[in-house]
Amino acid sequence: MNQRTEDIDVLVSEVGPRDGLQNAKGIMPTEDKLKWIETEAAAGVLEIEVGSFVPPKLIPGMADTGDVVKGALKVEGITVLALVPNLRGAENAFKAGAHKVTIPISVSEPHSISNVRKNHKEMIEEVRKICELRDSYPEGKRPHVETGLATAFGCSIQGVVDEFEVMRMAEAAVEAGVDEVGLADTVGYANPNQVKRVFKSTRAAIGNKLGSAHFHNTMGLGLANVLAALEVDVRTFDASLGGLGGCPFAPGASGNIVTEDLVFLLESQGLRTGIDIEKLMAVREIVTAALPDDQIYGHVLLAGLPKGFKAAAA
Amino acid sequence: MNQRTEDIDVLVSEVGPRDGLQNAKGIMPTEDKLKWIETEAAAGVLEIEVGSFVPPKLIPGMADTGDVVKGALKVEGITVLALVPNLRGAENAFKAGAHKVTIPISVSEPHSISNVRKNHKEMIEEVRKICELRDSYPEGKRPHVETGLATAFGCSIQGVVDEFEVMRMAEAAVEAGVDEVGLADTVGYANPNQVKRVFKSTRAAIGNKLGSAHFHNTMGLGLANVLAALEVDVRTFDASLGGLGGCPFAPGASGNIVTEDLVFLLESQGLRTGIDIEKLMAVREIVTAALPDDQIYGHVLLAGLPKGFKAAAA
Repeated sequence: MNQRTEDIDVLVSEVGPRDGLQNAKGIMPTEDKLKWIETEAAAGVLEIEVGSFVPPKLIPGMADTGDVVKGALKVEGITVLALVPNLRGAENAFKAGAHKVTIPISVSEPHSISNVRKNHKEMIEEVRKICELRDSYPEGKRPHVETGLATAFGCSIQGVVDEFEVMRMAEAAVEAGVDEVGLADTVGYANPNQVKRVFKSTRAAIGNKLGSAHFHNTMGLGLANVLAALEVDVRTFDASLGGLGGCPFAPGASGNIVTEDLVFLLESQGLRTGIDIEKLMAVREIVTAALPDDQIYGHVLLAGLPKGFKAAAA
Repeated sequence: MNQRTEDIDVLVSEVGPRDGLQNAKGIMPTEDKLKWIETEAAAGVLEIEVGSFVPPKLIPGMADTGDVVKGALKVEGITVLALVPNLRGAENAFKAGAHKVTIPISVSEPHSISNVRKNHKEMIEEVRKICELRDSYPEGKRPHVETGLATAFGCSIQGVVDEFEVMRMAEAAVEAGVDEVGLADTVGYANPNQVKRVFKSTRAAIGNKLGSAHFHNTMGLGLANVLAALEVDVRTFDASLGGLGGCPFAPGASGNIVTEDLVFLLESQGLRTGIDIEKLMAVREIVTAALPDDQIYGHVLLAGLPKGFKAAAA
């Protein structure tokens, strides 16, 4: 998607402006979203999920996603990613010029029906139509289509999710034409052994179409799961700046892993993210100023970097 | 130390009644400490650090440690462990009947001098005297002597701590006569690669005298570090119930990893701890009732166990 990815070992995909804001109390003005995106890009983040193309009456904070995409396209060097739940959303995202869209599909069918009122067959059909739309664009201008397999590690409705079902859904998505399949621990049930097992089996099914890992820190295992995923060669991770959108102190907490903590872990392991962690930590000021009623958090943010900390060599 | 350890894969050593209470705001009455210890033992915890033999005027909350040790000795099946900073403390611990004592030695000499006003040579001399005292007990009644190497992964005064210095101090402690050497990430600087490296090199130096891992969650890496330590065959971990004694929400937070979260991680990895996690989670009620001004936390505690969660087979 961009030139600089060859200089890094791991791609950190910032989902805060979408996943974080979608679950925040406050609504962030468009100009603040763009300031956030610009500043985080200047810290070295290479992929940002800037919003979602959903009906504004469902999620008012995402009503400006078209403008955010257009603004973000002016920021040099980043992949501008947007979530789209259906063909209508994809049409809008492609029109706005998003480099990449991500379509969530719940591996747990009860979760899928409860969330988007579509069963697996209907969701795959929607994905197929989005891929056909993508293919109507001339090569070189064709956006990248990702599917994020939600509840891939368990579901709060269904409970255990069978890993063969993850493989099957990944294969169905690839057969429908997606460029990439990510696996998401939507409810935070994943554990390290399971992460290794499910990523390996999914890779066995779809090879290099296997993409990002999206972990939550619900059970405190978010970064342990990252470590496990690294061991089976996963090299793209979603995270939310300051853990925005999910407070881990509240019952049922379900926040994304924290971008700053993820970058700290990766750099401490000698894995280059291309991100300047001190500049990244400074981005929080934009977020807290724009969302006074929302809480951000993160361990590195509270404790500060260790004395003598060295990032991975650039 | 006890019979049941053969039925488990990993030993969880509860440090809350010592490390947690030593850093808590409130002072817990002796009877509540004993209720805590009994109830946690009934949940299956096999080793508990019940207090420290330090001057009461320095830490008033530990003034009753002699009585706590005596009471804890009546609880069946647990190893009763106490921290001792010096020979005087060890004399008191042995007199009270503690099964095991742990002596902290800072690998960072500036930290040692700042904390206990002793340099390395003086600390090792103190350890030697404690081991001589141990040897004056008849075999079979001889307490177990552990050294915990503090700041083994970094120090907030000195910064980086050389891993060869960790090996050297471990060798010196073994040469002075200790039965076991644990490694402690006192200030929460450790990262997973470092954990693997330092435990492996220390094992190369002292073989099976290498004991427990004591991690803090300061940077959010506590459980990732546990995962790394498991990969290099560490099988004893310290943790504090409800993270007592260190609040991760405050700047400079430095709390121990949370016992409930540790047990959840281990059991999710198929590693038997012998601990009933639901009974363990219920122990918090005793702690919160006795310490109304202290906050306890933990991810599993807040989120609850995942739907369909299965512990490792007994």
